[in-house]
Amino acid sequence: MTLLCNMDQSRAAAFAEVFERALPEGVPFSFDAASVDPDDVRYLLSWLMPEDIERYTNLEIMFSTGAGVDQFTSDRLPANVKIVRMVEDGIVRMMQEYVALSVLMLHRNFIGYKEHQNKALWQAIDQPQTAQRRIGVLGLGVLGQAVLDRLAPFGFPLSGWSRSAKSIPGVTCLSGDDGFEQLIATSDILICLLPLTDETTGMLDAPLFSRLPKGASLVHVGRGRQLDHQALLDALDQGHLASAVLDVTEPEPLPTDHPFWSHPRIMLTPHIASVTQPSTAAIAVSDNIRRHLQGEDLIGLVDRNRNY
Amino acid sequence: MTLLCNMDQSRAAAFAEVFERALPEGVPFSFDAASVDPDDVRYLLSWLMPEDIERYTNLEIMFSTGAGVDQFTSDRLPANVKIVRMVEDGIVRMMQEYVALSVLMLHRNFIGYKEHQNKALWQAIDQPQTAQRRIGVLGLGVLGQAVLDRLAPFGFPLSGWSRSAKSIPGVTCLSGDDGFEQLIATSDILICLLPLTDETTGMLDAPLFSRLPKGASLVHVGRGRQLDHQALLDALDQGHLASAVLDVTEPEPLPTDHPFWSHPRIMLTPHIASVTQPSTAAIAVSDNIRRHLQGEDLIGLVDRNRNY
Repeated sequence: MTLLCNMDQSRAAAFAEVFERALPEGVPFSFDAASVDPDDVRYLLSWLMPEDIERYTNLEIMFSTGAGVDQFTSDRLPANVKIVRMVEDGIVRMMQEYVALSVLMLHRNFIGYKEHQNKALWQAIDQPQTAQRRIGVLGLGVLGQAVLDRLAPFGFPLSGWSRSAKSIPGVTCLSGDDGFEQLIATSDILICLLPLTDETTGMLDAPLFSRLPKGASLVHVGRGRQLDHQALLDALDQGHLASAVLDVTEPEPLPTDHPFWSHPRIMLTPHIASVTQPSTAAIAVSDNIRRHLQGEDLIGLVDRNRNY
Repeated sequence: MTLLCNMDQSRAAAFAEVFERALPEGVPFSFDAASVDPDDVRYLLSWLMPEDIERYTNLEIMFSTGAGVDQFTSDRLPANVKIVRMVEDGIVRMMQEYVALSVLMLHRNFIGYKEHQNKALWQAIDQPQTAQRRIGVLGLGVLGQAVLDRLAPFGFPLSGWSRSAKSIPGVTCLSGDDGFEQLIATSDILICLLPLTDETTGMLDAPLFSRLPKGASLVHVGRGRQLDHQALLDALDQGHLASAVLDVTEPEPLPTDHPFWSHPRIMLTPHIASVTQPSTAAIAVSDNIRRHLQGEDLIGLVDRNRNY
């Protein structure tokens, strides 16, 4: 029944402290694969899938330490093994902060004001009110909904898109192909929070940018491989898009000679929007193991056919 | 009973449209001083006090088109004339946006990440959680309270200071001299929303900065004359303060050779944090005239002894 954890030592202590008191009785944990009988390992917590994953023949749940599971080579796992994304308060709060910050920065044109500042130019820029700034969120999972919740008090018109239809008070919820087109056509600030799948790879491309309203901006907090870098640069330089906040790129780190670094309309951060917080993450894992043992639904369970 | 308005034509139309339907019956309005009998003017709406203010011998209320009244030379007004600051939804909403944006930008260190970006450096910066980032607001009037309301969902510990004691749920409310010292000593991000008075002129100075916690940041949305520019530069360059977001300076516009323009730890905007919105401002003025006629308290009434 062992939970085997694969992470660097600097984070292990904080997880261990919570596991001591939060894991269900009878579930020991270890951070040292060499000292554990592979047959005892029922639960595995890791960012990458271990090279020797096949050793763990009794594995029941593979937990990701992060919000995504696209880094798992999941075809190496037997079909009966469950894959669980990390859904924990720390990740959610940090994503709320980052996206609210990015949306407000784009709305109040701090990218334009920074350009003015660099030129010592004291000059107001036309400022629409929030009611005229339409926000569109791609992805209405836990993170998408949490982000919308944080944006709502500011008075932006809010829309969101998900593959399957959802209903969220105060949000225009769209789904399916027609809904997708409607969201793109009406988003002055587009936020990508979609998981990386075959369908979403490369989706933020030139045709999509051309269907956004003129002057729209992008907040990309999904995965780097969803974005066509050159298409974004073209859309910015042709003036169709106003600006972008990017937290993810392909590859990461971004090469030092990449044009994103010096582009005046791009704010770039090194994949720090949302970082798993050990204290709350260890509670989330412990709770999911308890749910598993009691036959309840798991939080963050991945549909292995869709891989998210 | 006339309301005389002094503003440029580009804004007059939007005010007029609302006044047509919102002013109490029997209160005409005009944007043209030359066409009005001065004796008829009971209400004056203006940013600056007119040169010929003494003409309006029957004046009852002097409305500011802005949130501040420090630009009025109020000793030229008889003591019975009421002075009213602009308190209207547009100003409040924009200040909420600007301060929430600034606080999140400082909290998530976008100033540091922009420095990294300029160096093509892909490197995470240590990130405290919101529970470890104490916010202190100087000024607990309508704007201060509204700003705190918008910050509350993010989970920052919130404190505020005002001259007279206040009580706001979820906020540590401080007042008086001891309260002021406590607020300064415990604010990792200090927000100045105080009105300009004799007491607040020059208050953001070297001794105050030295009493802030090491690594603190400043959001200044009060008035330029409250800030000692050189003291801020020294505190930043000595590393005691981390960064600052400034919307107001003295003078405005800031001279093009001023060191604020090029300082890497300063985000500077040209006094645009909050701008009176005609549609909501006209409603606020109309409502205050109705209140005055019905003997009710005015919203934004200035204490003429304190001048705020």
